[in-house]
Amino acid sequence: MPCQSNEELESILLEAKQYTREGKVADYIPALSKANPDDLSVAIYHPDGTCYSAGCIQEKITLQSISKVITLALALMESGEEYVFSKVGYEPTGDPFNSIVKLEMSNPSKPLNPMINAGALAVTHMIKGNSVEERFRKIIDFVKRLSGNEEISYSAEVAKSEFETSHLNRALCFFMKQHGIINEDVEELLDLYTKQCSIEVNCLDLARIGIVFALNGKEPITNKQLMPAHVARICKTFMVTCGMYNASGEFAVRVGIPAKSGVAGGILGAVPNRFGIGISGPALDDKGNSVAGLKLLEILASKYELSMF
Amino acid sequence: MPCQSNEELESILLEAKQYTREGKVADYIPALSKANPDDLSVAIYHPDGTCYSAGCIQEKITLQSISKVITLALALMESGEEYVFSKVGYEPTGDPFNSIVKLEMSNPSKPLNPMINAGALAVTHMIKGNSVEERFRKIIDFVKRLSGNEEISYSAEVAKSEFETSHLNRALCFFMKQHGIINEDVEELLDLYTKQCSIEVNCLDLARIGIVFALNGKEPITNKQLMPAHVARICKTFMVTCGMYNASGEFAVRVGIPAKSGVAGGILGAVPNRFGIGISGPALDDKGNSVAGLKLLEILASKYELSMF
Amino acid sequence: MPCQSNEELESILLEAKQYTREGKVADYIPALSKANPDDLSVAIYHPDGTCYSAGCIQEKITLQSISKVITLALALMESGEEYVFSKVGYEPTGDPFNSIVKLEMSNPSKPLNPMINAGALAVTHMIKGNSVEERFRKIIDFVKRLSGNEEISYSAEVAKSEFETSHLNRALCFFMKQHGIINEDVEELLDLYTKQCSIEVNCLDLARIGIVFALNGKEPITNKQLMPAHVARICKTFMVTCGMYNASGEFAVRVGIPAKSGVAGGILGAVPNRFGIGISGPALDDKGNSVAGLKLLEILASKYELSMF
Amino acid sequence: MPCQSNEELESILLEAKQYTREGKVADYIPALSKANPDDLSVAIYHPDGTCYSAGCIQEKITLQSISKVITLALALMESGEEYVFSKVGYEPTGDPFNSIVKLEMSNPSKPLNPMINAGALAVTHMIKGNSVEERFRKIIDFVKRLSGNEEISYSAEVAKSEFETSHLNRALCFFMKQHGIINEDVEELLDLYTKQCSIEVNCLDLARIGIVFALNGKEPITNKQLMPAHVARICKTFMVTCGMYNASGEFAVRVGIPAKSGVAGGILGAVPNRFGIGISGPALDDKGNSVAGLKLLEILASKYELSMF
Repeated sequence: MPCQSNEELESILLEAKQYTREGKVADYIPALSKANPDDLSVAIYHPDGTCYSAGCIQEKITLQSISKVITLALALMESGEEYVFSKVGYEPTGDPFNSIVKLEMSNPSKPLNPMINAGALAVTHMIKGNSVEERFRKIIDFVKRLSGNEEISYSAEVAKSEFETSHLNRALCFFMKQHGIINEDVEELLDLYTKQCSIEVNCLDLARIGIVFALNGKEPITNKQLMPAHVARICKTFMVTCGMYNASGEFAVRVGIPAKSGVAGGILGAVPNRFGIGISGPALDDKGNSVAGLKLLEILASKYELSMF
Repeated sequence: MPCQSNEELESILLEAKQYTREGKVADYIPALSKANPDDLSVAIYHPDGTCYSAGCIQEKITLQSISKVITLALALMESGEEYVFSKVGYEPTGDPFNSIVKLEMSNPSKPLNPMINAGALAVTHMIKGNSVEERFRKIIDFVKRLSGNEEISYSAEVAKSEFETSHLNRALCFFMKQHGIINEDVEELLDLYTKQCSIEVNCLDLARIGIVFALNGKEPITNKQLMPAHVARICKTFMVTCGMYNASGEFAVRVGIPAKSGVAGGILGAVPNRFGIGISGPALDDKGNSVAGLKLLEILASKYELSMF
Repeated sequence: MPCQSNEELESILLEAKQYTREGKVADYIPALSKANPDDLSVAIYHPDGTCYSAGCIQEKITLQSISKVITLALALMESGEEYVFSKVGYEPTGDPFNSIVKLEMSNPSKPLNPMINAGALAVTHMIKGNSVEERFRKIIDFVKRLSGNEEISYSAEVAKSEFETSHLNRALCFFMKQHGIINEDVEELLDLYTKQCSIEVNCLDLARIGIVFALNGKEPITNKQLMPAHVARICKTFMVTCGMYNASGEFAVRVGIPAKSGVAGGILGAVPNRFGIGISGPALDDKGNSVAGLKLLEILASKYELSMF
Repeated sequence: MPCQSNEELESILLEAKQYTREGKVADYIPALSKANPDDLSVAIYHPDGTCYSAGCIQEKITLQSISKVITLALALMESGEEYVFSKVGYEPTGDPFNSIVKLEMSNPSKPLNPMINAGALAVTHMIKGNSVEERFRKIIDFVKRLSGNEEISYSAEVAKSEFETSHLNRALCFFMKQHGIINEDVEELLDLYTKQCSIEVNCLDLARIGIVFALNGKEPITNKQLMPAHVARICKTFMVTCGMYNASGEFAVRVGIPAKSGVAGGILGAVPNRFGIGISGPALDDKGNSVAGLKLLEILASKYELSMF
């Protein structure tokens, strides 16, 4: 079993940590720019409940794009594959996460996949409920179940900061509204979406969520099936093909595990049938991925032969 | 062990075969348009050397785009990862295989990945040798070793037909020549490339090649390492992220195995550590993939839980 | 002097009118779809005040995109060339009027020209005032002065219908807001923009506005300079290079006069130093131009050698 | 009459000449990089045969893109409007002159207009003849007639240099060959095209050619109609909408005359019914236009009110 001691993980973390200075903290969302670029922490969660970790593990970050995998799972559970994929596509794209070009050119204007912003907004739009509050409660409750952590909450400050500045997401929403992909009030959808992005977790939470995907939906402690196996499988597929923005292809070659990153510096990893990985490291590379987090995963992948390929 | 009898495979083939009529044979290369759209055959090769098959298994098809995986392996072996990926990228794209748009927009004009035509041409350009003949011999000899079939040859007729009509590939080559991605004579490169595409195989050959990738480069009979494990792994990664043209994302969700298709109707599949799959079925869907071949893989995937995810 | 008799104009109108059946009325704005596709009317206004006309000349249509020229003139008068062109570009584009692709790709994300929707929205954004009402009064007052018609008003019904359905324009606005091209409340800007588009005129009004541009800003009756000559010249330049959506180039070859069309079927024409032309014909071709109106201008252009080139 | 003395023109030239240092000589064609960036000369040719000039007027430059207008005229005379515009479009584009993006996206893949490289290649393809030599003789003879200069020849050195390096043009040609826009041997077409681009003229020749367009095809001295009036008109239209690469819109606003530039630094101007202008100034701005030449035209335009608009 890999990472049998915290010491081993500590030493890998130390090696990766020197790369934090090559990245910088996201600044396009004002509230994110306050993060400490030097932070780095990692947790690895095994099917038997053992968990190893290193670094400032109590440091919380917001989920940001990592939440896209979670709402995708929820939407698939609520509305089924056929409906979900009538609104968003399956195909990866070499474009940046906020690109609007493909949205226009593809036909019938449906977002190429659920991991780009347009696709994620279309997925969040599917989450059912009578109000933003009810729908958000559904999402955060699901995160609580996945992480086994009842204390999970969201940062109202980050949500507000994002809500006020996400004009590009508004543009994507109105484009999709024009083309019939979404039909709710855009401000309500963005309210819900920015809240979902602002759910706070630490690397332990992320590792716990990761193990559920790794075990095809099964909670390792209680053995409860938190999502159907095929839903977990679909999510892991998108994590491989489009989980790391437009560096997904390179990540698949270099690391080769299902993973999803967020611009707050988090990475959720799921090594099929082996373990869940949670990383928090706010310094980002130019594609929007945690620069030291990627390095850490590369070291782990080569040391413990994690690649699925 | 799946497919323990030819009868079982026969019945799956029969079920898939009815979908042949939903596709049509490639007609943009004159020599390909003569194929029989009703043909369908499959072979599955196991690590212990057992092989099961069904359909018109002796029917030969040309490799076409399947050859892209093979030259990628060869180039990686000859020139190393660093060099190869200084000339072609890692990222999947939602565009059709012959798109020129991304080529222009990406920076520094390097093809997005080695599975689109531009990228594959750049890879073939890397194959070393003093003449087209010498370089082609190197490629076809590698195919012979991978398939364990010394009889493998190529169709001079198909090669000629493609050579004469591949103006779009010439456009891609000159675009790359302008941008310093390739620097040889374009007609020579196309001569080599169209020959590589015209190598003839049947589904048994494809299954034999598939098992080598599945076993990380190891020949199952002789136990010889035909390519380094990391080369096989890289190739399988691209087969997952971009192996089925711009239906790769959907294929990953529905089937979930490394696979590469060609417009002659072939599919090369490699189920990691389990088996190699070869399919031949010339009737294509609108993305350029064997329509009944895809169906057959979907049935196999669901029946024997092939998905890696 | 051309068109010396109404009879001559009537006969030209009759010839053009048979083309109405080749087009269809705009239906993407519900309120526009009620127009009569068979309507066609034309007026020609001379520098000496003589006016000839034919057809259902009292029939009112809304300005729609024709208003883009008028707000451009107003913005140039209020804020000057340098400021205006720091926010919108000069270059024509082969894309459809509502395209968002170029917006993203151009750098620094400024709309390519003031005649595409994005550019026109950026121009309307420049119109100064303390409220939408005040700014709109400024625009409609300018239309009244240009047309010499104090009775000009706007259709609250069309404005409301457009406001409720213009999600694409909202998308463009938020995209520009993200990139700092506009900074006001998007709903307010759209309120103003849809009102400006809904100003109602007939072909006589359009011909009167046209003569002012033709005479470099001078009102033919009062001899008052309603806009500086260089402003009129700039507007006429854009009418030539981008006045007829993505059929502007063909129109320049076939007709060769400054003209601006709108999706309600209006065309404003200005033959430099000769006369103003107003046309109303709601049946549109697939580019969004009045199909019979274009035909009518082609006949006039060939009969009276109108081309500037 | 403007520019009644060489002294006046000299002083305008002097004012413009200081801008030469803001540009740089084209270096993507090796043979062009030898030009002197400080050179600037201008000639103005009047309908009565008077000609004024200033600067190093005997300095020869190659036509480059200016030749596109001349072959367009020739093709229109040989094959007629209908045929020519079945192969190339009318619409300006905001893209750079060598862009391949629009070529792919437009339908049915026909070049957007005859002034971008793809369109100009398609036009040259139309020039009839039994050999490159015969077709080239036709083109150069036409240039001789237009300029009234029997001494005109071409630079074999520049032609060879361009032929050897124009891989991007080869890419465009093969793309068009694939789509049926051209069907001749690409190397032959490029041989002809690079020769046409390498025809050498000085600013006097350009001014003489310009007056022919300005007078709707009539030679001012002999009064011979060198091309039909409608052909001259069509050419002038494209000079306005797409004559100055992707700065055409700005040039139309700032100067407002039909003009065509080339990357050797030449500008051909035609002020309708007034005069022809020839400019030679090899230092280019970032769009590929003579930087001091543009300045010179701006001064002339404002001083003598040249704008057509």
